[in-house]
Amino acid sequence: MSAPDHVLKLGTINPNLVKMEYAVRGPIPIRAVELIQELKNNVPKPFDEVIRANIGDCHLMGETPITFIRQVLSSSLSPKSAMNDSNIPSDVKERVKLLLSYCGGNSVGSYSDSAGVEIIRKHIAEYISKRDGFPSLWQNIILTSGASEGVKLIFSLINSSSADGKPTGVMVPIPQYPLYSATCSELGLHLISYYLDEENEWALNIEELERALNESTKLCHPKAIVVINPGNPTGAVLTKENIVQIIQFARNNNLLIIADEVYQHNIWKEGAEFHSFKKVLKENSVENLELVSLMSASKGYMGECGLRGGYMELENFHPEVRAILTKQISARLCSALIGQLAMDCIVRPPEPGEPSYEIYKKEKDSVLASLKGRAELTFKTLNSLPGIRCNPVSGAMYAFPRIEIPEKAIKEAEKLGQKPDFFYCKQLLESTGICLVPGSGFGQIPGTYHFRTTILPQPDLFRRMMDKFKEFHLKFLKDYE
Amino acid sequence: MSAPDHVLKLGTINPNLVKMEYAVRGPIPIRAVELIQELKNNVPKPFDEVIRANIGDCHLMGETPITFIRQVLSSSLSPKSAMNDSNIPSDVKERVKLLLSYCGGNSVGSYSDSAGVEIIRKHIAEYISKRDGFPSLWQNIILTSGASEGVKLIFSLINSSSADGKPTGVMVPIPQYPLYSATCSELGLHLISYYLDEENEWALNIEELERALNESTKLCHPKAIVVINPGNPTGAVLTKENIVQIIQFARNNNLLIIADEVYQHNIWKEGAEFHSFKKVLKENSVENLELVSLMSASKGYMGECGLRGGYMELENFHPEVRAILTKQISARLCSALIGQLAMDCIVRPPEPGEPSYEIYKKEKDSVLASLKGRAELTFKTLNSLPGIRCNPVSGAMYAFPRIEIPEKAIKEAEKLGQKPDFFYCKQLLESTGICLVPGSGFGQIPGTYHFRTTILPQPDLFRRMMDKFKEFHLKFLKDYE
Repeated sequence: MSAPDHVLKLGTINPNLVKMEYAVRGPIPIRAVELIQELKNNVPKPFDEVIRANIGDCHLMGETPITFIRQVLSSSLSPKSAMNDSNIPSDVKERVKLLLSYCGGNSVGSYSDSAGVEIIRKHIAEYISKRDGFPSLWQNIILTSGASEGVKLIFSLINSSSADGKPTGVMVPIPQYPLYSATCSELGLHLISYYLDEENEWALNIEELERALNESTKLCHPKAIVVINPGNPTGAVLTKENIVQIIQFARNNNLLIIADEVYQHNIWKEGAEFHSFKKVLKENSVENLELVSLMSASKGYMGECGLRGGYMELENFHPEVRAILTKQISARLCSALIGQLAMDCIVRPPEPGEPSYEIYKKEKDSVLASLKGRAELTFKTLNSLPGIRCNPVSGAMYAFPRIEIPEKAIKEAEKLGQKPDFFYCKQLLESTGICLVPGSGFGQIPGTYHFRTTILPQPDLFRRMMDKFKEFHLKFLKDYE
Repeated sequence: MSAPDHVLKLGTINPNLVKMEYAVRGPIPIRAVELIQELKNNVPKPFDEVIRANIGDCHLMGETPITFIRQVLSSSLSPKSAMNDSNIPSDVKERVKLLLSYCGGNSVGSYSDSAGVEIIRKHIAEYISKRDGFPSLWQNIILTSGASEGVKLIFSLINSSSADGKPTGVMVPIPQYPLYSATCSELGLHLISYYLDEENEWALNIEELERALNESTKLCHPKAIVVINPGNPTGAVLTKENIVQIIQFARNNNLLIIADEVYQHNIWKEGAEFHSFKKVLKENSVENLELVSLMSASKGYMGECGLRGGYMELENFHPEVRAILTKQISARLCSALIGQLAMDCIVRPPEPGEPSYEIYKKEKDSVLASLKGRAELTFKTLNSLPGIRCNPVSGAMYAFPRIEIPEKAIKEAEKLGQKPDFFYCKQLLESTGICLVPGSGFGQIPGTYHFRTTILPQPDLFRRMMDKFKEFHLKFLKDYE
């Protein structure tokens, strides 16, 4: 048969996907992977290792998994041999028995309800109730494939048509985790950018929210606001007062709040505290404000990214809308059972006195203390350098410092058709092997430049990275003086 | 604060989701779950067990997992203790070492590349090359969360806008697996129904394809055709001749082929054989026809639905489109690593002589032989009954028999506002506890009635189910004579 043209070409596929961008896995990280291969093939480089500080992938960077979680998961896959294994603690065995008794055919190989295994949803609701001091209903919990799937489900749910042809709008912080802009692009939602207040530790400024919202109403029908707390890429932790203001703003403007709270276990700065939107809503007796809160197994002290565990809690959803969401999730059947079981371990960790408690506590504390040390070191090192200013890394796993890029470097970047912060990160990667993500991938006020670094490389590597970075930065400033 | 109206109501959310239907988890299965609860609460019922023959969930229905797969997965989660465990065969240990060496930080808790772990993609390509006798490129393999995610990704990819406002059209068989219609609804694609030829063992009739396509061009821009082989819900296995015809049809009409081949290990009928679209394409030297082939860890002899493993192979995609797909999958990061590792075990099972081979072979053969027996029993039992006609269950895990529903029952159903086949299945459920899905959930020629049953209940239960079904059916015919 003959060979005609392709059915699928750039001009004949989904234009939203053609436009979409996702910097965390963009050109710089892709180049980093090439460099790793080149090093393996003994291509000479001015460095002997690539340091992947571009992605919040804890285990990739050497963080070790929590024994309790892994024992529960591996035992749930081979329950018969685990039950006879004297090395498996009794609380792990009991947990596995309980969880499997809620899985079809006592197997993690069966589908769960679309929203997840019932007992796990109940444990999550108990965790939230205890965390906040306000009741959580298990029927409002939906297990998801990481938090990312939750975002996509909710963005798709709210994506309505309107008679005037204007799209649905979603307020998204700038800088943001690019999942949000990518999902807006993919689904054809209008992204309403609001700038976080860098001068005020990346807080949300209500005047700025008003400005962004008012300017957007010509272009879209605003329906939701995304807040990331603790912040990605900013490392900020919102104060309770700020959260109250945001809730009032959402209420006044009839917006659904989408609270990305996946870093709720990652609080570093003295005096900073995680306040869930749910808790602040209840404390202030706000009735009927619709809220989605997102959580993940990928961050915190467990860092189980590859298992794809996560959940969302829906608050004050209309029962009819809840029913549509149930239908919406049913076609994808369920999220991975192993990720669901990991979530169970996270929301119901071993208690004092239980056989697994001591080791669990030690491992968790050690991971968190080490991350805290790196958060502080990042802040200090970056602020010690000329032309760099960094807010405290109060929470999460990232710093998003502002860098002054010399005019000469900006011109050089322009010549190459690159954004100045991209140019900076590319130079850094090619000369030191350190892989960061340019601020332009997350958004920034025009004319300002940033990058995002994770704090995830293990302590020794992290110190090496900081030293190499320092050296590069000073040389860069000198070269383009 | 005051309590205004909800932001999200039926009229303000995504209208596509409001319209969407997904019968496999629709009202009848939901009622079945209620009945299980009622039985637990000792509510008197005319039956003492609910038989869930509505969903292709193997382990739920008592199928036992393959030891080799489970050992690899549990060892990958707790590699240290597994390596010291003398009960774990050496080939399992070697497999785990190899797989982990390709995972970031040697952990299944790290993200993989968006398309999956490299070595697993390579093993999948080797499996396909060996299966078909034609090379498969590992770069064309994308690991997905079951096959469902693959469908959604591709449907989203091809969903382009057009100047005339007509949507993209996808040809979908009727009856179909409702994932396809649900995904069309969700994404706003136009579903072009083509009827499978029940008189001809559910083959694809090319004249019918032409009719469906011609009629659709007023309403949409057709861009793809979905073929499910072996068939869900039909249980049919396509002949090579039929596949050649379909390929010619797709080529003549400039259509992408989406081949759902998740039941490729489930072939029952003497003389039937699985032919992949890829192989037939290559055998006929068809150049540049774009093809997506879908595979899953959820079916076959392993039935690992809950792990959410699957892959798709892309053939002849334009490099620019391939790049967009890479970007598209990057925002969801990766599919669950445990599901990916399960796929590895499936495409590279133990070889003769390896320590795990004997048990693996025995377990696999036993599952497949048992399913084959049930496929035959289903065919015989159903065809022995008046008013039921069933094609051979040549493959997959389902039968989709045609039932004659008496006029009186149709009138009774109308009175209740139910479709006649829904009425039939509802009566069956309430009086026997057997849960089937009405044919209307999959689509059927107007005026004909069917249901789908799985062949998954274990042999004893399956025979009980067949007996109860027989009794119900004969009584139903008599009652509505």
